[in-house]
Formats: sequence, structure tokens, C-alpha cells
Amino acid sequence: MATEIERKFLVLSDTWRAHVTRATRYRQGYLGPAETSSVRVRVSDTNAYLNIKGATVGVTRLEYEYPIPSADAHEMLDRLCRKPLIEKTRHLVDHAGHCWEIDVFEGDNAGLIVAEIELKAEDELFVRPDWLGKEVSDDTRYYNVSLVTQPYKTWGDAPTKSS
Amino acid sequence: MATEIERKFLVLSDTWRAHVTRATRYRQGYLGPAETSSVRVRVSDTNAYLNIKGATVGVTRLEYEYPIPSADAHEMLDRLCRKPLIEKTRHLVDHAGHCWEIDVFEGDNAGLIVAEIELKAEDELFVRPDWLGKEVSDDTRYYNVSLVTQPYKTWGDAPTKSS
Repeated sequence: MATEIERKFLVLSDTWRAHVTRATRYRQGYLGPAETSSVRVRVSDTNAYLNIKGATVGVTRLEYEYPIPSADAHEMLDRLCRKPLIEKTRHLVDHAGHCWEIDVFEGDNAGLIVAEIELKAEDELFVRPDWLGKEVSDDTRYYNVSLVTQPYKTWGDAPTKSS
Repeated sequence: MATEIERKFLVLSDTWRAHVTRATRYRQGYLGPAETSSVRVRVSDTNAYLNIKGATVGVTRLEYEYPIPSADAHEMLDRLCRKPLIEKTRHLVDHAGHCWEIDVFEGDNAGLIVAEIELKAEDELFVRPDWLGKEVSDDTRYYNVSLVTQPYKTWGDAPTKSS
């Protein structure tokens, strides 16, 4: 029912770390390969969700999210989701009226740091923080679902930091 | 969290129709191709559910089911699920203390009728109704998720009724 408008960027430096208001560790995985949609299972310290996204490339995607019991989620992650699972810590940073989500990945995706902003419209303006790097919204390699089949450690050529 | 134990059979005749206690029409579809699991969206007259099953072949499978808003379900069926959708009417028939679910398919799967029984254990005994045909629990062609990629009308060789 919801449409998600999200833009995704690399980061230039670690200066955002001084402004983190909350950090949450996620363990997540995907059910089956993605074709027209992805089905994600995500567990944080306190919650578990099933999330479905249309696989449209770009900034606007259909998205649905439902809370599920944590025990179900852990069982699905262990027994049904594709490996490797995605493990990351999400940091929230407020900047000029917008909330940035900065994901620091671990495991096979260690070294990758991505900043996301959710917008109400595709052309909504926002102030760029000085740590913000190159936009990668249209680069499917940075989709979390892609990081399962092609983890960051296998890329070789991609910069973590770029302008 | 739940484990589903289900046995599936063809039917020999229509005599079960005299004993139907309830009939419900379902519209359902699947998100993405199935590999280790299937994710099903199902809408009936009154409810909508998201259902996740482990793809183990046979009678025992991991299964999870969550209610979702009907509007979400119809939107996912129309915009995200693989086509053709599965459309069928499920008939409930009580027989000797067990409840049979008899699915009569429509559209590209018209002509296919399958009877299922849910059991508490793989070796649980049950009385065979006289209309019950060959068991097809281990035949993946009869999985609803398979009926999307290979609808019944494309089979050519398979009997609807067999002993």
C-alpha cells in the first residue's frame, strides 16, 4: 500500500559519528532470489519484521512491512533465508530537518558504509551534510538483497568513499 | 514456528460434493520464484494472509502464516506476484473425524481437483473416503507454487482421476 522514496549515498568521512542519536544492530536475510520483489526477514534487539519490496530500480518502490514474532524470524533466518545473512548496525543522524540512516555493514560486507534518506517526493529538497558522498540510488549492487549474492568483499573495484 | 504435515491425493469421483460443509473461493499468488521457500499472498472473501513455506519436498514443511490487510494483498497480487495467479474454490468435507480440503482449480489449472488432509504426525492413520484416488504428496507438480510456472493445462499426460 505504501510507496517508498529513498535515496542512497556513500560517505566521505566518519564525521557523522559525532551526531548519532541511536544505533540499532540488525540481522536480516531474504527468502528466495529476487525477481519482481524481495521478501526480507529482519530482527533487531527488540523487534522482528517481514518486509516486501517491489524490485523496481531507482528511488520509488512499493513496500509493505508487517511485525512478526522474533522466534519465527530467527528460525526463518537460520533455516530458510539465503546465506550469507546481512548483519549491520544502523545509525540515525538528524541533519537540517531530515533523518539520515547510516548502515555500517559487517561480515562479508565489512568496509561498506551507506547513508540513506527517506523523502516524501522524488524531487524533495534536502541539505547535503559535509560527510555525504556519491549517490548510488540507481546502483543495484548496493541493494541489501544484492549484497547476499555479491557481498562487498567480492567487488574489488568499488570505492567505499567517493565524491 | 509451525510444522505442516499434509498429504495430498487426486479424487476418483464427485461423490464428495454431497458432503461439503463450506466452500471458499481463493485468489492467490507467489512472490518471486521458489528456491528454499515459497511466499504466498492469498485472499478469500473475508481475509488475506501472507504465508511462508519451506520448500522441502514431501509431507512435512516449515510453515508461517500472518494476516495482512486485504488491500495490500490485492495490490501485491496485481503488481508483484507471478502470473498466472492461482484461482480455486476450497471445499471442506468431514469424513470419519478428519477434515478434507478439496480444491477445485480454475483458469489455466481448470480440470485439476486435489484433496488434502492435515495430520498431526506423518504416520497418523485416517479412513480413506471412497472418492479418494492416488496420493501425490511427493509430486512437486501438484504444489500450488508449481501450478504458476507449469499450469495444469500444459501437462498433457497427467490424469485428474486415478487410483
